[in-house]
Amino acid sequence: MRETLADWQPAIDEAIATLIPRDIDADYLESFFGSPTYAYDPDGIQHALATPLWDLLDRGGKRWRAILFLVFVEGFGEDPTEYLPYACIPEILHNGTIIVDDVEDGATIRRGEPALHRIYGRDVALNAGNAMYFLPLKILTRNPADLPADRRLAAYEMLMHELNRTHLGQGMDICWHNERQVRIGIDEYLEMCACKTGCLGRIVARLAAIITDQPSEVERAVAEYAELTAVAFQIGDDILDVEHSLGQAGEFGKEFGNDILEGKKTLLVIHALQKSEPDRARRLQEILESDNNTDDEILEALEILEDAGSIDYARERALELAAEARAAIDGLDFDDETTRKLEEFTEFVIERDV
Amino acid sequence: MRETLADWQPAIDEAIATLIPRDIDADYLESFFGSPTYAYDPDGIQHALATPLWDLLDRGGKRWRAILFLVFVEGFGEDPTEYLPYACIPEILHNGTIIVDDVEDGATIRRGEPALHRIYGRDVALNAGNAMYFLPLKILTRNPADLPADRRLAAYEMLMHELNRTHLGQGMDICWHNERQVRIGIDEYLEMCACKTGCLGRIVARLAAIITDQPSEVERAVAEYAELTAVAFQIGDDILDVEHSLGQAGEFGKEFGNDILEGKKTLLVIHALQKSEPDRARRLQEILESDNNTDDEILEALEILEDAGSIDYARERALELAAEARAAIDGLDFDDETTRKLEEFTEFVIERDV
Repeated sequence: MRETLADWQPAIDEAIATLIPRDIDADYLESFFGSPTYAYDPDGIQHALATPLWDLLDRGGKRWRAILFLVFVEGFGEDPTEYLPYACIPEILHNGTIIVDDVEDGATIRRGEPALHRIYGRDVALNAGNAMYFLPLKILTRNPADLPADRRLAAYEMLMHELNRTHLGQGMDICWHNERQVRIGIDEYLEMCACKTGCLGRIVARLAAIITDQPSEVERAVAEYAELTAVAFQIGDDILDVEHSLGQAGEFGKEFGNDILEGKKTLLVIHALQKSEPDRARRLQEILESDNNTDDEILEALEILEDAGSIDYARERALELAAEARAAIDGLDFDDETTRKLEEFTEFVIERDV
Repeated sequence: MRETLADWQPAIDEAIATLIPRDIDADYLESFFGSPTYAYDPDGIQHALATPLWDLLDRGGKRWRAILFLVFVEGFGEDPTEYLPYACIPEILHNGTIIVDDVEDGATIRRGEPALHRIYGRDVALNAGNAMYFLPLKILTRNPADLPADRRLAAYEMLMHELNRTHLGQGMDICWHNERQVRIGIDEYLEMCACKTGCLGRIVARLAAIITDQPSEVERAVAEYAELTAVAFQIGDDILDVEHSLGQAGEFGKEFGNDILEGKKTLLVIHALQKSEPDRARRLQEILESDNNTDDEILEALEILEDAGSIDYARERALELAAEARAAIDGLDFDDETTRKLEEFTEFVIERDV
């Protein structure tokens, strides 16, 4: 196995390029999508699919979903190179959701460059993003590791379950974002994270368990690890935004108070609204609802979060979740090497650019 | 079985309401999507998913994909009521693509009312449309007709194949729409129809064949029937737009020359560019490329199509395709009742409102 996790990146990109090459021709189309009834237009499919997909992938991203998959496969005692094509499943799915989310949010920037729909148009970007929901699922049909039918069916059923819950999570998040009032509590927030971000993590873990034929309690344990880690990661994001903003108070940069400006209902906001005096809670709500905030107003909101102990609360919850995640896989007999890699993985995720 | 095809509509809507009820509560969410890790927000999911989905369905649509599925099931000698939940699969998929297509095209109107993204916002509409790609696929996992594992796997593999090709077709269509020049020929156009519209038809037919365990040659035959019918239907649409426009020349209504105005590369346009004198072909290309056309220019383009014999050509191709479709299932031993229904179906499709 590779020395460090990042060493896997070139092999993963090569596996993705086997599924969807940088340069599309009629032979590839016929071999992957089957014979045309009349005639494909490789140039059109190049522009509609391969070019936007590789534009996004070439901007970076650590391929950590693919890497975590390979760590699990190796932890289960199997050769990860044999299962490399399957590692592309969560990776392409994830990048597809990024394109679609950016259209939904009207995002302008992604990984330091214009969001895909700003370059290729909303129609091309969206269709490419949606194609990336189905493209990787065809890998199971192509069956590169010659899996028996029951594992392929189990994989499809798992994917349908998790991809449905992903859309529930995204639906809740969007809905709350469009509401002015903060109507939900901490459990609903955590559920949204568990669905929206956690389910892709669960796909990584469960896919590794299913295709290597692990017992169902092992599949459950790694799924829980991945879900809890993803939720902790999401909360970490919320904390970073607030801490980064408080750290630069006085010299308000362009990232200053992003979440407050967007009116995001983060764990910190929900906690602060519950714990603050009524007049301060009302004031926080007011600033969140406003479409335009001055830097002073943002600072005021951040201070309400701080005074309510919401940063500390969120940090405790994140640590708790990370501990629960570790506990979930504690009973599994992973070797020291895998355990080390799962720890390395946690650090790897934290230095993130997605 | 019902006397006429339309009699199935209430039962189909009831089956859809079992999958995704008009009113969402925690019990439904738990039973369909599994236990939450923390707590779902039924109100949020109501607004994000059930309300937009039922808004679209309640605007009409003949549920003909579901009905055709049931006709095939009965034609294969099985009881359609037993397989009713599976009829929702192509129907919900189709309505999902409508929502997504409307976002991609920036459509304003759908079935006589504002497109969903104009009512619920692009984010909600898009997420609901995408959720409708996965929601129905979960039916196979829930397995209402107690199908053996091999049929469920075959159904998933078929769906992944066809849904991938759907996105190829949409990708080609979008790409050509964004190009000024007409670069493609008739075979590429027919392939686009076969992928974009035909694959959903193929899903209807193949799903009916797979879940009732038909031999593979029967599955291939009904798939061909459905694909060819869908392509004929698409060409019929192109012809209707031109004939309707020519018919009202002199009193230009609001639908006058829609396809020319949008610069659509229809079968008629591709044919006319190939068959017209060079200067008239150039003129047609010019009018198509222009962002603003006068009524006179549109009429001029329509006359170029007419003079090139493109309307007659398209009509012949459509009739040819319809004949090929009938021939495809000629060898199958459907009873007279099914044959009558498949004929009724063709008429039913023609009086369409989608």
